Amino acid sequence: MVQSGAAIAFGGTQGVYRHASSATGTDMTFSVYVPPHAPGAKLPVLWYLSGLTCTHANVTDKGEYRAACAEAGIIFVAPDTSPRGADVPDDDAYDFGQGAGFYVDATQAPWAANFRMRMYIEEELPALIAATFPADMARQGITGHSMGGHGALTIGLRNPDRFKSISAFAPIVSPLNCPWGEKALGGYLGPDRAAWRGYDACALIEDGARVPELLVDQGDADQFLTDQLKPDLLRAACDAAGIDLTLRLQPGYDHSYYFISTFMADHVRWHAARLAR
Amino acid sequence: MVQSGAAIAFGGTQGVYRHASSATGTDMTFSVYVPPHAPGAKLPVLWYLSGLTCTHANVTDKGEYRAACAEAGIIFVAPDTSPRGADVPDDDAYDFGQGAGFYVDATQAPWAANFRMRMYIEEELPALIAATFPADMARQGITGHSMGGHGALTIGLRNPDRFKSISAFAPIVSPLNCPWGEKALGGYLGPDRAAWRGYDACALIEDGARVPELLVDQGDADQFLTDQLKPDLLRAACDAAGIDLTLRLQPGYDHSYYFISTFMADHVRWHAARLAR
Repeated sequence: MVQSGAAIAFGGTQGVYRHASSATGTDMTFSVYVPPHAPGAKLPVLWYLSGLTCTHANVTDKGEYRAACAEAGIIFVAPDTSPRGADVPDDDAYDFGQGAGFYVDATQAPWAANFRMRMYIEEELPALIAATFPADMARQGITGHSMGGHGALTIGLRNPDRFKSISAFAPIVSPLNCPWGEKALGGYLGPDRAAWRGYDACALIEDGARVPELLVDQGDADQFLTDQLKPDLLRAACDAAGIDLTLRLQPGYDHSYYFISTFMADHVRWHAARLAR
Repeated sequence: MVQSGAAIAFGGTQGVYRHASSATGTDMTFSVYVPPHAPGAKLPVLWYLSGLTCTHANVTDKGEYRAACAEAGIIFVAPDTSPRGADVPDDDAYDFGQGAGFYVDATQAPWAANFRMRMYIEEELPALIAATFPADMARQGITGHSMGGHGALTIGLRNPDRFKSISAFAPIVSPLNCPWGEKALGGYLGPDRAAWRGYDACALIEDGARVPELLVDQGDADQFLTDQLKPDLLRAACDAAGIDLTLRLQPGYDHSYYFISTFMADHVRWHAARLAR
């Protein structure tokens, strides 16, 4: 792992790092904010998974999480959204291929060799974070935006022992039931929709995944609300399963980082309260 | 004036606007954040002038000012740093020409036709802001970063009746005494250094400009601290003139927006306290 940039911010350190990933077979870049802390302290970790077209840089630049993370004493990790590079398969569309990994382990050619973002986020990167930063891996939360909200919900629901808190900003709640999801999961996983259910928050809940609570913020002026995001599907799944979903429709907000940054500090505090010792 | 983008953020509206400027003879772009406010209310205005290579977008994306402006009820205006366009003179260097207007009215060819950022910031844009937004122009403050800190200090010192509060992040305090300043003012104003004194915060103070107080934050790990920024020159000028300068050397901070964003909320609150009715 090499550090490709670091600066002091809000009394802590915002760094950007690159490493050779065995999961993806490529170099991967991610950012980590470590807040000010006492020597030897181990801190809780909040994962943030980004949306379509994004890298680690979007939330690192625009997310406005550092003040709240410094105050709460929580590490913030922002991975990339897919493998990248000239040797990695790609697609001309913004919603498939590089920048659109959908946090799955692809099974279909030509994607299966590199597009293993599930393994990367669930196994490889956590081991690197644990080995490199002052992280208490017994206290992890996860959040994300749009495609990354889908990632946060599905990875959180599949790993309830690892993630003590799960939230999302304007998530794709059911790839089985929206054009983005049908295209991506069809491409990465093939036509058998039964194989998609492990990557669909609503289907995971229907199939038995249980967590005590979820927090979701969603702008009601989001251009993708009706066709792609469909938070009512998550509402129905949580109601049927007895999961305590706090779903806040935020009036006037769109799908941008202006929306995310507005509610970021609230999400950080929500996670921090659930990750306190 | 046309609105080229707008979104709700922290309960207010972050907009980006473009207009045909008579001062520069070009289209100019700027951003304005209007916080949530009661119908009919007139709000104080904080101007933020950006540094070399920047447009309105850098602080709009990375400045983290909206939460504090929403809480304080203050409008935030971020202009561009120079005229731009294929028909506008330019220089290959990052520190001269487009992106490096230095907030002067140029007198030298080929710059004099377009590079009139003093008139733009002091006269034209305030009139547009007053006519377009719910701004109380009797309550204005100004701040900025690096070259924009120079702009904030010099425009503030020349217009103490207009600006009730002046602060800066890592400002160029004396263009007469640093390579950036010597190159830019020499190029825009010619070799007669007497003509530069109206664009040098320290010289303005030496020549009689007076304000009650100034706030400056400066990172002590800033790569430009010793050769370009030289806050000790401002300290000496303020001490000799009896101006109450709060100069805070912030340990470990560099010249980036990680530094600016860390202290932005504090500056917003400092201005808001001085711009209260």
